Amino acid sequence: MRKATVGWPSWWVMIRISCDVVGRPETRILVSPADSHYLGVVMRRRMGDMVEVLASDGQVWLGEWIGDGQVLLKQLAPPGWVPRRHVILYQALLKNDRFSEVVDRATQVGVSQIVPLVTDRCIVRDMTDNRLARWRAIAKEASEQCRRSNLLQVGELMTASRLSAQPQTESYVLAPLGIADRPWLHESVAPLELVVGPEGGLTPSEIEKLAQKGFRPLSLGEQIFRSENAGSFAALLFLQ
Amino acid sequence: MRKATVGWPSWWVMIRISCDVVGRPETRILVSPADSHYLGVVMRRRMGDMVEVLASDGQVWLGEWIGDGQVLLKQLAPPGWVPRRHVILYQALLKNDRFSEVVDRATQVGVSQIVPLVTDRCIVRDMTDNRLARWRAIAKEASEQCRRSNLLQVGELMTASRLSAQPQTESYVLAPLGIADRPWLHESVAPLELVVGPEGGLTPSEIEKLAQKGFRPLSLGEQIFRSENAGSFAALLFLQ
Repeated sequence: MRKATVGWPSWWVMIRISCDVVGRPETRILVSPADSHYLGVVMRRRMGDMVEVLASDGQVWLGEWIGDGQVLLKQLAPPGWVPRRHVILYQALLKNDRFSEVVDRATQVGVSQIVPLVTDRCIVRDMTDNRLARWRAIAKEASEQCRRSNLLQVGELMTASRLSAQPQTESYVLAPLGIADRPWLHESVAPLELVVGPEGGLTPSEIEKLAQKGFRPLSLGEQIFRSENAGSFAALLFLQ
Repeated sequence: MRKATVGWPSWWVMIRISCDVVGRPETRILVSPADSHYLGVVMRRRMGDMVEVLASDGQVWLGEWIGDGQVLLKQLAPPGWVPRRHVILYQALLKNDRFSEVVDRATQVGVSQIVPLVTDRCIVRDMTDNRLARWRAIAKEASEQCRRSNLLQVGELMTASRLSAQPQTESYVLAPLGIADRPWLHESVAPLELVVGPEGGLTPSEIEKLAQKGFRPLSLGEQIFRSENAGSFAALLFLQ
């Protein structure tokens, strides 16, 4: 295992897994077969190597990989991070598994929940249970990688026409010619909703309807961002 | 071709190509074989369809696809965008063509120049001319997609040990435990340099040496961003 260096946080180079446990010192926990494979085969951890365990109560534990799918928890590690603001990203379905990339990056910037959306111009219009399970697995892996203490939730499929802004949230739909006053600089901590259209964008009529339902059209700048980037870029600005 | 709608900018849904020409009305320009293939075969444009041409002087032209690899320029279109600040991204080489993703996203957020970097922990340590040509092609395509008027430049390979911060620039190396005062909020327009390490990060010794050479260690937050995301995320914040 790579040694931590003075002035370098030891957790930076640590392998992490998230487990549905509440940890206590000197207890053994059983990790999932997938995580066991990841630790032993993919990352080639040996008996006695240390790993970090992101527990379901938000604490992070330093544990020893003792093989047989088990980690022996030793002591609390420095806490992980949680997003400073609740952000829901309504993201239109995308071709070629690019929705997976969105889940990965949204997890890293701190989106709390991602809801797959069907809009008029979506080429992909439904989603299988397999796909949902895959996105949830990607959210877990991305949380582990970036040391996030809570998981990004992946919601059930919705249609854009059924979407309404929730009360007491700041709600935006990304659109060209939207407001450009950089509302992310206001340092609000109110829950946030972001709607991102598919390749080719939401239709003008969809944007108008969403605006009537309380989503303010928002422009991130003059450039036309790819759909798979727009959500994580917008979320990053609001979560900076 | 999809019709522009009232209240919706016509250029939003336009196909764009960038050409090394200075345009004049009613002149025919010859596009590259690759662009001709893109327009005619990939995007199925027909004779008489309109396209946008990003000219080398920064102007954008509305032109008519007249086949035979030619576009007839008609009139000036609304100007494209240029990054509001000069940003150089020194990005460590990455495995599995992920450097291409960095080029794509860096173009969209407005990085001016990207310089491939070899550092101690880089798995990939050299780059072929083919690779360089590919990255330049990706930069061109990404510029067209996001309607950027100037191209991102892809520089020659450098080693981290030869890097020094340039005078009169703000220079940062992304690092854990770096300064966290969000210098992107200062609204500076000074040229900016950003150094991003590979998977596994720069070594503490590399960060120390870069700090001595004028690169201030900068943290984007508590999360550990993937190397392929960190540069475009940081650039986006500084270019917002």
